[in-house]
Formats: sequence, C-alpha cells, structure tokens
Amino acid sequence: MSAERKLAAMELAERARTASRALLASSSEQRARALRLYADELESRHVAEAIAIANEADLRSATGKNAAFVDRLRIDEKRLAGLARAVREVAALPDPVGEVVERSTRPNGLQIQRVRAPLGVILMIYESRPGVTADAAALCLRSGNAVLLRGGSEALQTSSVLLEACQRALEKAGLPEDAAQIVPPDRQLLDEMLQLEESIDLCIPRGGPSLIRFIAERSRIPVIKHYQGVCHLYVAADADLDLATRLAVDGKAERPGVCNALECLLVDSRIASEALPRIGEALRKRDVELRADERALKVLGNAAIPAAPDDFGKEFLDLKLAVAVVDGIDSAIGHIARYGSRHTEAICTRDGKLADRFLREVDASCVLWNASTRFNDGGELGLGAEIGISTSKLHAYGPMGLRELTCTRFVVRGDGQVRK
Amino acid sequence: MSAERKLAAMELAERARTASRALLASSSEQRARALRLYADELESRHVAEAIAIANEADLRSATGKNAAFVDRLRIDEKRLAGLARAVREVAALPDPVGEVVERSTRPNGLQIQRVRAPLGVILMIYESRPGVTADAAALCLRSGNAVLLRGGSEALQTSSVLLEACQRALEKAGLPEDAAQIVPPDRQLLDEMLQLEESIDLCIPRGGPSLIRFIAERSRIPVIKHYQGVCHLYVAADADLDLATRLAVDGKAERPGVCNALECLLVDSRIASEALPRIGEALRKRDVELRADERALKVLGNAAIPAAPDDFGKEFLDLKLAVAVVDGIDSAIGHIARYGSRHTEAICTRDGKLADRFLREVDASCVLWNASTRFNDGGELGLGAEIGISTSKLHAYGPMGLRELTCTRFVVRGDGQVRK
Repeated sequence: MSAERKLAAMELAERARTASRALLASSSEQRARALRLYADELESRHVAEAIAIANEADLRSATGKNAAFVDRLRIDEKRLAGLARAVREVAALPDPVGEVVERSTRPNGLQIQRVRAPLGVILMIYESRPGVTADAAALCLRSGNAVLLRGGSEALQTSSVLLEACQRALEKAGLPEDAAQIVPPDRQLLDEMLQLEESIDLCIPRGGPSLIRFIAERSRIPVIKHYQGVCHLYVAADADLDLATRLAVDGKAERPGVCNALECLLVDSRIASEALPRIGEALRKRDVELRADERALKVLGNAAIPAAPDDFGKEFLDLKLAVAVVDGIDSAIGHIARYGSRHTEAICTRDGKLADRFLREVDASCVLWNASTRFNDGGELGLGAEIGISTSKLHAYGPMGLRELTCTRFVVRGDGQVRK
Repeated sequence: MSAERKLAAMELAERARTASRALLASSSEQRARALRLYADELESRHVAEAIAIANEADLRSATGKNAAFVDRLRIDEKRLAGLARAVREVAALPDPVGEVVERSTRPNGLQIQRVRAPLGVILMIYESRPGVTADAAALCLRSGNAVLLRGGSEALQTSSVLLEACQRALEKAGLPEDAAQIVPPDRQLLDEMLQLEESIDLCIPRGGPSLIRFIAERSRIPVIKHYQGVCHLYVAADADLDLATRLAVDGKAERPGVCNALECLLVDSRIASEALPRIGEALRKRDVELRADERALKVLGNAAIPAAPDDFGKEFLDLKLAVAVVDGIDSAIGHIARYGSRHTEAICTRDGKLADRFLREVDASCVLWNASTRFNDGGELGLGAEIGISTSKLHAYGPMGLRELTCTRFVVRGDGQVRK
C-alpha cells in the first residue's frame, strides 16, 4: 500500500517536473494566452453547467456541516464569474520571468545578470474553498511554474471541473496539461509527496494554523508558512486622537475575521487617561469587547473587562481587542517583540523620528505609520494579486505575489574568459 | 539530560534573539566599526599568541588524522593575517540593511517601500576550518544578524580564541557580546537547537553532503543547502574549438577539488570526431582521466576509458571527467536536466540564439555562455564575499552574499488612511 502511494506520488511529481521544463521554454504571451483561454472556459455555458452539478454534489456531502463551511464550499454563478475575472487579471499582470534584477560588467569583461526564473514545481495545499484551484493555478502558471493542487476532499468534484477547464486551456495554448494537476485527497499520498524534495521546489499550505503546522512538521520540501496575525497599534503620546480612533476602528471592527485585523491596542501612559475613553467609546459603539490590562482597566472602568494573561498574543478573529498601557516607545517595541507574530504592526504618531524608530526596530513583514493594519494585503500594497502572506522571513516575508513565485539565477555571458 | 540540553539550547538562542533586537537598532557605521575593531584584534600580538597556543593544542589532539584534515585545522600567522584582512573587507562592503529595493505611492497616498532588514538569528554549522568562525561572524554581523557558531570539536580551542576577540570588539563598539556566540560541540545540544524555529531564523550548514543531509533531515529551522556541483560544459556544433578547449581545461584541471569545477563534457555529435581528440589531448596533458560513453569512446579510443553508468551525475572532485556525445541542444539540455545538480552549467557556441535557449532552459543557479564554470563564485560574480553557494532555490540560489543574509519588509507611511 505504502509502496503504491510512493510510486503514485513520484509519478505525479515527475509529470509536473517534466511540464515545468516545457514551461521554461514557453513564452510569456503563451502563458498569458493559456490563462485568457482558461477565463473563457470559466465563462462558458458548459463549465457553468458542470460546476452547478459538481458543486451541488459536494454541497450534498456537506450536509450537517456549519454554515460557514458550506458557504466556503459554494460556487454559485457570481463566484464563478469572479474566478474568471481573477484569472483574467492575473493573465494581464506583468510577467516576472526573465526580468533582469541586477546587471554588471566585471573587469574581465564578463556580463553578469541576475534574472528571474520560475521556481519549478509548486505544491499548493488548501482546505474547503474550491476557488483556490483556479486562483492558485493562475498565479503559478503565470510565473512559469507547474502546480500540484491538493484541496480538501469535500470540494473535490467542484475542483476537478475547475482543473479540467484549466487543462483544456493549457492544451489549446500548446502547453502541457500536466502543468496543473490535482493531487487526490489521501493523507498517505500527501505524506509521500512531502518527501519529494528533489522533484518539488516549494510547498504552500493555506488554511488554519493546525494545517500549516501539520505540513511544516512533515515536509522535506521547503514550506512557506503563514501563521497567525497578532497585529498591534501603538498610539504614541503625541498622537492625533481622531486619527488613532479611526485606525483602531478600521483595524478591529470592519472585518475582524481576517489576518491583518487588529488584535491589541497599546496606548502610551502619558495620554492614556484621555485616549483610552475616547478610542474605547468608538470601539464599543461597534460592539468591540475591550480586554484591558490592569492600568488600562483603571481608566476604562466598566467599559472593559480584565484581560486574561493569554489575551496578549492571541488572534481573536472576532470583535474582541486586548488593550494595554505602555511607557513610551521602548516599552511598546518590547511588548510587540514578546507578543507579536511578525505579521503587521502600526504606530500612530505625529513625530517622524519616533515613527522611523518603530518602522526600523519592530520586526514584522509589514510595519505602518499612521495607516491601518488592514493594508497588509497584496492588492493594497500593489503586488496585483497574492497567493498568501508569509510570516516566515526566508524567500518571502509578507504578501506573496508573482515575483515571490520566482527565484533569481546568475546568467553570465563571456567571450572566452577562464579563471586561470 | 535531554531537558538540560533543551534548556541550554533555548537559553543560547534567546540571548542571540535579544542581541539581534539590539542590532536592529544599531547603525551601519557601528557594525562596520565593530568589524574593524575585530580585525585590529586579530592583528594584535595578544591574539596571535593566544591563537598559537590554542591552535597547537587543537593540532595535538588531531594527531593521527590525515594531512588534509590537519591542514584545514591549522591557523598560522599568514592565515591569521588573511582572516583579519577578510574581516576588514567585509566591514568595507556596502550595508544591505535599510536598502530600499522598491518604492511606490498608491492612489490613496500610501507610500510603500520594500526595505532590506536583517534575518535575525543565523545558526552556522561547519566542520574543521576554524577560520569560518571569523568569516561567518563578519558576514552575519555586517548584515545586522546575530550568529550562533557551531564548529567542529577538533577546532574548538582555536575557534574560542577567535570568538573572544570578536566579542571584545562588539563590546568596544557598544554592541552586545551575545551577537556572536559559540554553540558547544555536542550532538544532542545541536539536535535541540535545530528545533528552535521560533528563535532561530536560518541555518546554514557548510561541509560535505553527509553533514548537510544530516542537518536538513533534522532541522525545523529553514536550511539553505549547498549540495554538490555536478557541472557540465556543452560544446555546440559551431563552437570555437580553441575556446572550448580552454574552457574545459580551466574548468577541470586548474582546481578539480572545488564545487564549480567541471565534471562532465558534452560534445555535439556533428563535431565529435574533430573536437573530442583535440580537447581530450589538452586534458590528458593535464593528467585528466576521460571516462567516455560509448559514442565518445569510439572517437577517443585508447585516450579514454569506458564510463561506468554512475560516472554521469558524479561529483569527482578529482582529475577525472565524464564525456558524452549528444545530438544537438535538446539532447544536451535533457542530459543536464537528468544528471546536473542545479549548480553551474555552461555552453560554448558562437550562436547567440542557441546560447539564449541554453541560458533560459537549463535550470541551474548559474548558467554561462563562453565562460568557465569556475566563475560561479561570490567574489567573481561581484557579490564581494560569500557565505556559501546555495543549490536550493528558495531565498537564495547560487552564491550568497550580504544581501542574501537579509529579508525585505514592507514599510508603509500614511497620513491617516483606513481601508474602509
């Protein structure tokens, strides 16, 4: 059994590797065209009908699951149109492959370039959203990578229809179908795939922390992790309190369930007695529960409840906010170093020098001055589209766009240079 | 015992993490000054005397080891002067920290920068060369990282003297001594350190393939691997044979024991009968043994011996060269895809279009046209200094200089922007 699975994993990966070589030889326009054809497929009547049937079947199997689960699984006409649009947008993004990042001529005449090239084969692992099958395939293929798509079993029928449409588009564009393949949802098969460090270049798990930890522990392939976002806003002593209030409300109340939402408010002790009631009042109007440390509680009184010790460093993903009073910037930076998750950290101040210290000394994938934490997002930062937000520093730190799905190689042109 | 080791590992890593935060707040000049002071120390009489005693003791313990081992261990006056010079050169290199890699202003007025920042804490693992203790520390500190140095037990006394000199320099420059620490050579302690993915950002093993594989299998920390270099030269049908001969001799015969040395020569079938005897003759004059496939053997006759099947894909690190005849560029690219190690690959041709195909379609960290494979080296490619050559694509592919010891973060400056 295990030998069979190993063989199946190796065969899938080998086919992806072969396809990735063909992609190295493909032109940018050819890959863009494949994606436009994919979008056409997604907008066609036959795909709409096949999706309706497959998604209905997936939804039937999900009977008894909670509403959020069922909602993630559903692909209705509007969502299908959204997927087609997203694929078309990725097709229109500038191609990172072939981009010359640096160039120089050495004293011996060698012309050196660092050139972006595809990573090769990417294994995407995700949970119930079948739309990832289209999104992730589009980003990987645009950047010249072959992709292995391992979604959840609950969405398999829908995903399969989405993949088949992609493979038809690849074929029409003269590219190998094996450039995008589904990995059947089988735990042992996945375990075998995660050992194939020679054939697969990168593994990207998308989902809850337990999925990511599970993959990171088992994988011999490099993994880009996106753990949780425990994001802070530090309101300095000189902050404009209207602005601080807007940033706190936007960070916490607009969309509390996302990773760049605010989870902890740090207020400087010199303004706590004025700032806390004002910001707190605005948050309470938006039904945010404040969980305050001892000093903040003294100011907020009944407007807050006492924070439990583990409320600091917690990703609530809910209308709850930890609140603490800190003594100046060193104390704020120290708090964030202890409790932050290297995701997104913001400061509100009028003092550019103070802001610069914060922006330099706080270690996170995105640091912001007088702007909402919610801007740590590939689209908002100008990457065009993102495949995830990395909280590990190697290779990509923060939102991963097309460029982050490439590596750079040294390309050297000479006229007969030898070293000795 | 194991709990004790775990505690010891955590304490070392935590001290390094704290020091790395102080480095975030340090200026470029402060770090450069620490390295100049380190070089001064290495040139001082008291360090020279301490090294002489410590190295003598290490060498005494190595009695009975082979000459190459003893040679790697030895630090004489000349080598000590070389280390001081290398440290001073690293001090003078441009600081990658703070470098703005990209900048843009979004339609909402947000100013976005991608800024280089240190990785944080780097664990270097190496074998008997004590000089790495100085080299690696210099590169890590220059790029704002704290470093944990885990060398071999056979060089421990020498390494300790080198480290103490570094720590004195750090202290004089107002930086924390814990920014560079030695990890005592104890296998179980290392095992515990390799689990500390939260406190250590990167692990770089330097040494033979067995060391690297051992670390990669055990580490939860991301590892940058430098496996072997199985480098090819493809001589196309239109190649200038004088040039091809020079490239083959330089690649194989000048320094056969290094990773960018040539291990396999591929000659196009259309010119095999002319090219092989000529290149073969030049190589044989340099005592290179040719191990030829069937078709090459027909031309070379007694000038070669038959290649064993595993001679293709082998890193000889010796005056031996595999030789094969291939039918055109597709066959050459296919051969390299099968047997190459993604290290360094070269083509010899007069045809720019043919070269471009090779440079694009061959997957290796460095691809060269009409130049020796021996140029895949940080110094030769203009990186200033290198800490290793990566054959894995994530984060760094090819020689790793100071920049590759950093990550990029998003730094966002606003004037009150909220997302909604």
